[in-house]
Amino acid sequence: MNKQKRFLLNESELPRQWYNIQAEMVHKPLPLLSPVTKEPLTAEDLSHIFAVECARQELDQEHAWIDIPEEVQERYRYYRSTPLVRAYALEEALGTPAHIYFKNESVNPLGSHKVNSAIPQCYYCKQEGVTNVTTETGAGQWGAALSYAAKTFGLECAVYQVKISMQQKPYRSSIMRTFGATVTGSPSMSTRAGKDIITADPNHPGSLGTAISEAVELATTTPNCKYTLGSVMSHVSLHQTVIGLEAEKQMEMAGEFPDTIIACFGGGSNFAGMAFPFMRHTIKEGKKIDFIAAEPASCPKLTKGKFEYDFGDSAGYTPLLPMFTLGHTFKPANIHAGGLRYHGAGVIVSQLLKDGLMRGVDIPQLESFDAGMLFARTEGIIPAPESCHAIAATIREALACKKTGEEKVILFNLSGHGLIDMTAYDSFLNGDLVNYTPEL
Amino acid sequence: MNKQKRFLLNESELPRQWYNIQAEMVHKPLPLLSPVTKEPLTAEDLSHIFAVECARQELDQEHAWIDIPEEVQERYRYYRSTPLVRAYALEEALGTPAHIYFKNESVNPLGSHKVNSAIPQCYYCKQEGVTNVTTETGAGQWGAALSYAAKTFGLECAVYQVKISMQQKPYRSSIMRTFGATVTGSPSMSTRAGKDIITADPNHPGSLGTAISEAVELATTTPNCKYTLGSVMSHVSLHQTVIGLEAEKQMEMAGEFPDTIIACFGGGSNFAGMAFPFMRHTIKEGKKIDFIAAEPASCPKLTKGKFEYDFGDSAGYTPLLPMFTLGHTFKPANIHAGGLRYHGAGVIVSQLLKDGLMRGVDIPQLESFDAGMLFARTEGIIPAPESCHAIAATIREALACKKTGEEKVILFNLSGHGLIDMTAYDSFLNGDLVNYTPEL
Repeated sequence: MNKQKRFLLNESELPRQWYNIQAEMVHKPLPLLSPVTKEPLTAEDLSHIFAVECARQELDQEHAWIDIPEEVQERYRYYRSTPLVRAYALEEALGTPAHIYFKNESVNPLGSHKVNSAIPQCYYCKQEGVTNVTTETGAGQWGAALSYAAKTFGLECAVYQVKISMQQKPYRSSIMRTFGATVTGSPSMSTRAGKDIITADPNHPGSLGTAISEAVELATTTPNCKYTLGSVMSHVSLHQTVIGLEAEKQMEMAGEFPDTIIACFGGGSNFAGMAFPFMRHTIKEGKKIDFIAAEPASCPKLTKGKFEYDFGDSAGYTPLLPMFTLGHTFKPANIHAGGLRYHGAGVIVSQLLKDGLMRGVDIPQLESFDAGMLFARTEGIIPAPESCHAIAATIREALACKKTGEEKVILFNLSGHGLIDMTAYDSFLNGDLVNYTPEL
Repeated sequence: MNKQKRFLLNESELPRQWYNIQAEMVHKPLPLLSPVTKEPLTAEDLSHIFAVECARQELDQEHAWIDIPEEVQERYRYYRSTPLVRAYALEEALGTPAHIYFKNESVNPLGSHKVNSAIPQCYYCKQEGVTNVTTETGAGQWGAALSYAAKTFGLECAVYQVKISMQQKPYRSSIMRTFGATVTGSPSMSTRAGKDIITADPNHPGSLGTAISEAVELATTTPNCKYTLGSVMSHVSLHQTVIGLEAEKQMEMAGEFPDTIIACFGGGSNFAGMAFPFMRHTIKEGKKIDFIAAEPASCPKLTKGKFEYDFGDSAGYTPLLPMFTLGHTFKPANIHAGGLRYHGAGVIVSQLLKDGLMRGVDIPQLESFDAGMLFARTEGIIPAPESCHAIAATIREALACKKTGEEKVILFNLSGHGLIDMTAYDSFLNGDLVNYTPEL
């Protein structure tokens, strides 16, 4: 009869293991170094701030497959599988011979892929006797996901949200409060770090740097409290591989295999989640796939950054990470895709980029919103400003196919919806948005 | 292995016909009357403002099954089936032996069930050579759904939004603009009706009454322009039966049949959509099901209204409808569930209520938000303030089962998510919300 639009898995077909690409990489990622001693960090070192199991996963270069705990699988079943969707209407609007598919993570609880890692991080904390979790958040996607996951496992949750973001996007802090989290604008008077900042500058608008400092301080000074992170780290990428593992089975249902895989890129977790399960076919079987990470032109660490040891945060509190970076003091322009405003690239992805297994493309802000508008008007979903970058890269590839006549199969990750970001669309519709060219 | 959480249909199992309960009702609804002549209206009369096919469906008391056009089915496949979900976490939190299921219409494009009727209404307009559609909207759920559907079929769309709502919920008008609709705050200077109102009262905040007047005027004075409606009318209820028809198959997959079916009630379309397909088993086979429409205590037309002929709008422009009503001049309190602030009940539901086939329950505002909070924290979805009423009624039934020990199967419709309504949750969390007792 008709062309099938959506592909969904039965609960019995959902992944029971995450895929740990570290174990199969030819060139392993370099070690994380202590910011103090410059010595490689052990899982034991990392477990002072992260859950023990997350710290172990972070450095695991042995096991390609890691069991998803039964209770995490149970929570995944609340919303997974997410649909794999053939974007017929977008294809038609572009007049492309390419077949465009997207994985719709926007229908997840809290509207983005972030919950895929929030659930296991909270689960491990609960298992290890932890009672409180904390984190930092900018726009609030990660903070919202963590708030829900913490409530699910009966943990108290304290989120430090960048003060200026909290004022600009009040809906996201309302969402966190709805899930019972304590939300504090950073810098705050609740930590030593915060007090120092405020004392020096009472009007400090906050940054991810100040919020990380406060969350880490809370975790290290509070009994039974752990710090959690929504991207960058390898264990977060590991948890996100449920996306790609599902997509692989769903592409089989559609009878196709992707030539091109695209995701937007901030800290790397949604890209990793979609790409790594497919990349194992490249590593093991030499399968040719064009992996494209779409970053904002205003924060181009993949295309214009340097591979070197750098801090993960702007203040220099984190371990030294071997990665592509614009430097930890780089200040990204104030684009609406807040989740992509990050100076570095995560250690696994950086190694893969270095080894030529993937590539980055730079998307100017206006092109990203043009793409998001077209996607909304054809497929009916308003994408998050971050996800608009993946759509823009997809449209570039699809239009290239239109020129060459190639029927490429393109798969991209729709990491989240934009319903909490409508002020960004408003600005775009009003002609108030601009492109930014970074000074490097 | 595990208890299955979600039930989804394959595309081949999706309904190909809507269910028209009018054809099987023992006591048919009374006719709509012309406001001028007081004579019964014909489909021909109604087709002056509605699409011809919608006007025909409105009065169809013959055909129990009406084919869903192929192009509408194709658009439904963009997001249907919606999941039927077993609310294990909510059951556990309540400690109830009841089995609670909900149909999740919140993952639809634009976040509510409204799109199920917006698509066919725009399709019929397109088929009939109409180029422009118009409507009124309060909070904006219907206006957003119509904007998307209009774009999909290449129609121009003009929405009159209640001016005060437009200011209070700016995100919804941004959403409509994203889909290319023209959004005008009502009262406006763009119509004769609007000019009259503004001239008399320059600071008029607008109401559904003013917005209906303006939209109807635009439709009747613009070539190739039709008026559309998001609830109340029988053809809207007809389109929404895809919800219940899917749910019936999905309950079969779950191996259960509902004892109790619950939906919130404003104009009646989401209630009708869920209830009518199940009610045919009551009408034809005498199956006992407890159908509960959850209305706000501040607008209790089902429990405290009178059955009589009344206008559908506050200004008295519409046909006279035979229905339970609080009177068309009733001013509902300013509760956050804007979609439930309606004085009447639609003609089919009113007849069914009169015949004892269903019942209404009244939910105070605070109870509705208590219910919504518990649902969010257990099931991970922040419900629309309207849907909170269905959840509150469900919780009442589930707690009654806890007392009696009955393992009742309760099915409710989650008509939409609350992500655009976070200010309402904020007010609740801050303790600023109150209950309203209407003066009747």
